[in-house]
Amino acid sequence: MIGIFDSGLGGLTAVKELHTLSPGEEIVYFGDTGRVPYGTRSESTIVKYAKQDTAFLLSQGVDAILIACGTVSTTALSTLKQICPVPIIGVVEPAAEAAVRATRNGRIAIIGTSATVRSHAFDREIARLAPNSSTLSVACPLFVPLVENGFTAPDCDITRLTCEHYLAPIRDFGADTLILGCTHYPLIAETIARVLPEVTLISAGAEAARRVVALRGIKPSPSSEIRYYVSDDPTLFTASASLFLGHDLAGQVEKIDIERYGYGIGT
Amino acid sequence: MIGIFDSGLGGLTAVKELHTLSPGEEIVYFGDTGRVPYGTRSESTIVKYAKQDTAFLLSQGVDAILIACGTVSTTALSTLKQICPVPIIGVVEPAAEAAVRATRNGRIAIIGTSATVRSHAFDREIARLAPNSSTLSVACPLFVPLVENGFTAPDCDITRLTCEHYLAPIRDFGADTLILGCTHYPLIAETIARVLPEVTLISAGAEAARRVVALRGIKPSPSSEIRYYVSDDPTLFTASASLFLGHDLAGQVEKIDIERYGYGIGT
Repeated sequence: MIGIFDSGLGGLTAVKELHTLSPGEEIVYFGDTGRVPYGTRSESTIVKYAKQDTAFLLSQGVDAILIACGTVSTTALSTLKQICPVPIIGVVEPAAEAAVRATRNGRIAIIGTSATVRSHAFDREIARLAPNSSTLSVACPLFVPLVENGFTAPDCDITRLTCEHYLAPIRDFGADTLILGCTHYPLIAETIARVLPEVTLISAGAEAARRVVALRGIKPSPSSEIRYYVSDDPTLFTASASLFLGHDLAGQVEKIDIERYGYGIGT
Repeated sequence: MIGIFDSGLGGLTAVKELHTLSPGEEIVYFGDTGRVPYGTRSESTIVKYAKQDTAFLLSQGVDAILIACGTVSTTALSTLKQICPVPIIGVVEPAAEAAVRATRNGRIAIIGTSATVRSHAFDREIARLAPNSSTLSVACPLFVPLVENGFTAPDCDITRLTCEHYLAPIRDFGADTLILGCTHYPLIAETIARVLPEVTLISAGAEAARRVVALRGIKPSPSSEIRYYVSDDPTLFTASASLFLGHDLAGQVEKIDIERYGYGIGT
C-alpha cells in the first residue's frame, strides 16, 4: 500500500499516473487542504507540516510514501528520510533525470513555489547528473492559487498573463526543457506550452509516480482501493478533484485532524 | 490592551487605523501566516482556526478583541462571542453601517472571500439596517494571494484583469457603494477604483477600528507598544508588512505555535 501526500490537489497528478501504471496497487492519498499552499511558507513550517503528513500516512499502514509535492520534496525530504521507517520518494531526482534525458541544448528551466526555488534542489541534482548543463529556477507563487481556484482553462486571460509574467525570463534564458516542479502545474500545462512553444515540459509528479512503479514493480494486491483524506471539508476537495482525475470522487473523501499527528515522530 | 487578529497581513489595515485614531492604546496583533488564506476554507476549519487565534490573544491578557478578518467576522463571530470572556468586535456591522450611510441609490455591493460570500453576513446586516436597499456579494478568491504575493501596484496588468473579471457583475448591478469585505483588499483599492470609478469604497477593517475607538474612547495607557505575532517565519511577514504600515517592523515580530492554543476554550 502506497501513501501519497501533497499540500492540496496537486498530488492527484501522481495518483492518476500511479494508478494508470499499476492499477492493482492500493493507495492512500492525503491532501492538506486545511493548510494549502505550502510553497509560500518558511522552511521550518513546511518541515513541520510534512512530518505531520508523513505520520498520518504511516498511521494508515503504508509501506512506501510518495511525496507528490514539489515544495516538500525540495525542502523537507532529507528530514523525512531520517525519521520515516518506510521508503520515501520525492519528485526531484525522477524529474531531474527526465529533464537531463530530454534536453538537447543543456539549458533546463525549473518552475516551482518560492520554497522550491529557494532550496535549489532541482538545480543541484541536475548539476550532479549533467555538469555541463545550465539551469534557471523561477518561483511562480500565484500558480497554486490559480489552479486551486479553477483558473485552468487554456483561454483564461488571467492565467495566460500570469504565465507570461513568470515565464519571460525562461524564454530569454533559451531553455529547451522545463520541469513543472510543483504538482499543481500540469493543470495549466497547455497555457504554459502556449507561452513557451517548442519547450519540452516534464511533470515532476508523473515522473515520481513512474519511479515508484519502477522500484516496486507492478503489484497486484488484495485491494486496489484508493482512499482519499483531506484536512478541510471533503466537499470542497471533491468538487475540484475531478479536474485532476477526470472522474467524480463523491463520498470517497474523508476529513481528518492533521494537527493531531506527527508530534511523536522525529521530535 | 486590544488584541487584533487576521489570517495574515490584511488586519494591519485595522492596526494602522486604530493606532492613528488612538495612538496611546497598546495593541497585540496576530497574523496566522502559517495557515493563510482562510477564505477558501470550510466553515468548520475557519471556526477552529478562529478559536485558536482568540485563545492566543486572550493568553496575552487583552481586554478586547478586534477581528480584523472579513472571513472570520462573517463565519465565526457568533461562535466566538459565546466563548470569549472579553468584548469581541467584527467588521460586518461597522462596514454595513458605513455603506448604508454612503449609498445614494440603495445598491450596495460586497466583495470578500468565498467563505464571506457564502455566509451572506453583510447582505443580512444591510437588509436589517436598510430594508429597501439591494445587495450583491461577489467572491474574489484570487485577491488575497495577489496581495500576499505583492501584486499590488496600480499598473499591474494581472491584478487589473483579475479585478475586471470579478467586478464586472458589480458594474452591471449598478452599485454606487462597495464594501471591501476582506481586510487585504485596501491594498489594491486603487485598481478596484479604476475598474469601478464613481463607486464609494468602504474599508471593512478601517470601519471596525473606528468602531472600537468609538466604543472605548481614546485611552492613554502606560504603554503604547504594538506587538506582532505570526505563525510562520517573521521575516516573510516583516518584508510585506511595510506595504501595509508604511514603516519597517524589523525585529518586532515573533513566531508562535498557534496549534498549541485553543483546545481549552469552547471545546
